[in-house]
Amino acid sequence: MASGDDVVPVTLIGLGVMGQALATALVEAGHPLTVWNRSPDKATEVIRRGGRLASSVADAIDASDLVIICVSGYDVVRAILDPVAESLKGKVLLNLTSGDSTAARDAARWANKNGFEYLDGAIMAIPRVVGTEHAVFLYGGSAAAFTKIENTLKTFAPVGTTHFGEDHGLASLYDVALLGIMWGFLNSFLHGAALLETAGVKAAVFAPYANQWIGACTAFVASYADQIDEGVYPALDATINTHLATMVHLRHESTAAGINAELPVLFKSMADRAIAEGHGEDSYAAMIKQFRRASA
Amino acid sequence: MASGDDVVPVTLIGLGVMGQALATALVEAGHPLTVWNRSPDKATEVIRRGGRLASSVADAIDASDLVIICVSGYDVVRAILDPVAESLKGKVLLNLTSGDSTAARDAARWANKNGFEYLDGAIMAIPRVVGTEHAVFLYGGSAAAFTKIENTLKTFAPVGTTHFGEDHGLASLYDVALLGIMWGFLNSFLHGAALLETAGVKAAVFAPYANQWIGACTAFVASYADQIDEGVYPALDATINTHLATMVHLRHESTAAGINAELPVLFKSMADRAIAEGHGEDSYAAMIKQFRRASA
Ligand SMILES: NC(=O)c1ccc[n+]([C@@H]2O[C@H](COP(=O)([O-])OP(=O)(O)OC[C@H]3O[C@@H](n4cnc5c(N)ncnc54)[C@H](OP(=O)(O)O)[C@@H]3O)[C@@H](O)[C@H]2O)c1
Ligand SMILES: NC(=O)c1ccc[n+]([C@@H]2O[C@H](COP(=O)([O-])OP(=O)(O)OC[C@H]3O[C@@H](n4cnc5c(N)ncnc54)[C@H](OP(=O)(O)O)[C@@H]3O)[C@@H](O)[C@H]2O)c1
Repeated sequence: MASGDDVVPVTLIGLGVMGQALATALVEAGHPLTVWNRSPDKATEVIRRGGRLASSVADAIDASDLVIICVSGYDVVRAILDPVAESLKGKVLLNLTSGDSTAARDAARWANKNGFEYLDGAIMAIPRVVGTEHAVFLYGGSAAAFTKIENTLKTFAPVGTTHFGEDHGLASLYDVALLGIMWGFLNSFLHGAALLETAGVKAAVFAPYANQWIGACTAFVASYADQIDEGVYPALDATINTHLATMVHLRHESTAAGINAELPVLFKSMADRAIAEGHGEDSYAAMIKQFRRASA
Repeated sequence: MASGDDVVPVTLIGLGVMGQALATALVEAGHPLTVWNRSPDKATEVIRRGGRLASSVADAIDASDLVIICVSGYDVVRAILDPVAESLKGKVLLNLTSGDSTAARDAARWANKNGFEYLDGAIMAIPRVVGTEHAVFLYGGSAAAFTKIENTLKTFAPVGTTHFGEDHGLASLYDVALLGIMWGFLNSFLHGAALLETAGVKAAVFAPYANQWIGACTAFVASYADQIDEGVYPALDATINTHLATMVHLRHESTAAGINAELPVLFKSMADRAIAEGHGEDSYAAMIKQFRRASA
C-alpha cells in the first residue's frame, strides 16, 4: 500500500477496457480519482468505487496535478487535449495510449511547447493483470517527472515499473517489439493448434505443451542475444541448415493437412536467404541479418 | 539412476550433434552402447566414454534388441537401414530423426512388413539439455513397445518423456507444431532486436524483457485454447481491432527504421481478414479460423 504522502489526486481520461482497470487500481490504492470519458455511462463502476466523474475535460484536468490518458490512439489524445492544452500547464501528463515512437516524440514536443511535463508509457499487460506483480509498465521521458510519480505508477505495476530514460520514443519501441513477439507466439500457436486439430487433438491438450516449450525457448533467446551483439554465430545447438529441413516438414504438414501455410512459407523464405548468404552452418542468431534489412 | 534390469544394451546409429548427446546420456546411465556413424571419426568421444564402435550397420544392430537412429532425415534412415532390414526382425527400432507424419506412418508400415516394432520420436530439446529435467521427448507408436523401453527413454528425458498413443504420426505433428512456435518466437524476437538496435538498445538488454513477456503470454494461450475448442471468442482482454491498431504501429516503426517488415505485414494481413469476416470485436482466439483455411 502507498503511504499517505503518495496517494495524490489523479485524473484519468479514457474508460475503455484498459482505462477501467487503471481506475480500479487507483481508487483501490486510495487515490482521489477524477475521470472523464466520451461516453459518460462507462463511469458507473468507477463512481460506485468512489471516483468522481468530471463534467468536462477541463474540469477533470483541474482536479489533479497528474493527468493520465488511455484512449484508442494518439490522434484521439490530441483531439481530446488540444482544446484544453493550456490547462495542463505545470502538470504532468502521462500518456498510456499505444502508439509509435514518432508520435510519442511529437507529443513530447507538443507538451514542451505548452509548458507541461510529458511521460510516455506502454502497458505490457491485459486489464485483469493491472496492479499485480505480473504487470509490466514501460516508461520513456523526463526522469524528474518519472521520479515524481513513481509511487503512483507502482499502483499499476508494483514489480514491473520500468523507466528507459529521457527518450520519449523508447516505451513505444519496446511496446511494439514485445507485441510482435506476442503475435509471433500466438499466431504460431494458432497455426499448431489448427494443424493438430486435423489429427483430432484439442487446443486445450496442445496448449500446455506449447507453454512448456516456449519456456524452454527462452534459453535460445538469451544465448542468441549475446551472439547478435558480438556478431559471431557459432551453432552451439542446431544450424540454420537443420532448422530449414524441419521448416520444410512444417510447410509440408500444413499443406497436406489443408491448413494455412503462410507462416512456414515466410520462415523458410528467410532461412533460405540466410543460407544463400553463407549462414547455413551458423546458429539461428545469424538470421538477425535478414531482419536488419528493409524488405522488398 | 536406472535399476540393474533397465540398463539393457542399446545400439545407436548417427553421431551428429544430437547423436553425441544421446550417446553420452546412454553411457552415463550405464547402458552397454554400440554405435555406428557414416564418419567413424565422430565416435572418438563415445569410445572414450566406454561405448563400442561397430564395424558395420549390421554388426551394430546385432548387438542390441533396441536400436535407436538419429540422422539428418528419413531418407537417410531408409538408406542406412533398408539393406539390413532383416536383421531388425523381432527388435524395437526407435527413430529420433525429425520428419513429417506421413514419413513416420510410412516407416511404421515398413517396420511392420519387416517384422520389427517401430516407435517414432521427436526431440524437443537441444543437445546439452538431453538427459536433464528440461528435455521433452515425444513418442508415437505401439504402446507395448513404448512400455518395454520406457525406462531407457527416461535416460533422455527423466521428466518430459511423453507417449501420444498408437498413431506413429503424432510425434512428428507435435514436433513441427512446436518448432513453428519456436520460429514464431525467435523470428519475432530477432525482429524486435533489429528494431531496438536502431535506437541503440543491445539485444542482450532486450532479451530479458522478451523472455519475461513471453512468460506472460502463456496466459493468453491457455485461455484462447478453451475458446478455440468451444468455438466462442469473447474478448476478455483485447479485441482483434485493438490488436490491429498496434500491428499498424509495428509495421510503421519497422518501415521507418528501415528494417524488415515481413512479419508485421503478415500479422496484419491475417488480422485484416479476420476483421473483414466480422471478428473485429472478438478475442485473438477467433484468428484460428484464418489458420484452419488453406492459404492461397
Ligand atoms: N486492452 C488491452 O489489453 C490493452 C493492453 C495494453 C495496451 N492497451 C492500450 O490501451 C489503449 C486503450 O485500450 P482499450 O482496450 O481500453 O480500448 P477500448 O476499450 O476500445 O477503449 C477506447 C477508449 O478510447 C476512447 N475513444 C475512442 N475514440 C475516441 C474519440 N474520438 N474521442 C474520445 N474518446 C475516444 C473511448 O471512449 P468511448 O468509451 O466513448 O468509446 C474509450 O475510452 C489502447 O491504446 C490500447 O492499445 C490495451
Ligand atoms: N541439433 C539439435 O538441436 C536437434 C534438436 C532436435 C532434433 N534434432 C534432430 O536430430 C536429427 C539429427 O540432427 P543433428 O543435429 O545431430 O544433425 P547433424 O549434426 O547434421 O548430424 C547428421 C547425422 O546424419 C548422418 N548422415 C547424414 N547424411 C547421411 C547419409 N547420407 N548417410 C549416412 N549418414 C548420414 C551424419 O553422418 P556423418 O557424421 O557421417 O555426416 C550424422 O550422423 C535431425 O533430424 C534433427 O532435426 C536435432
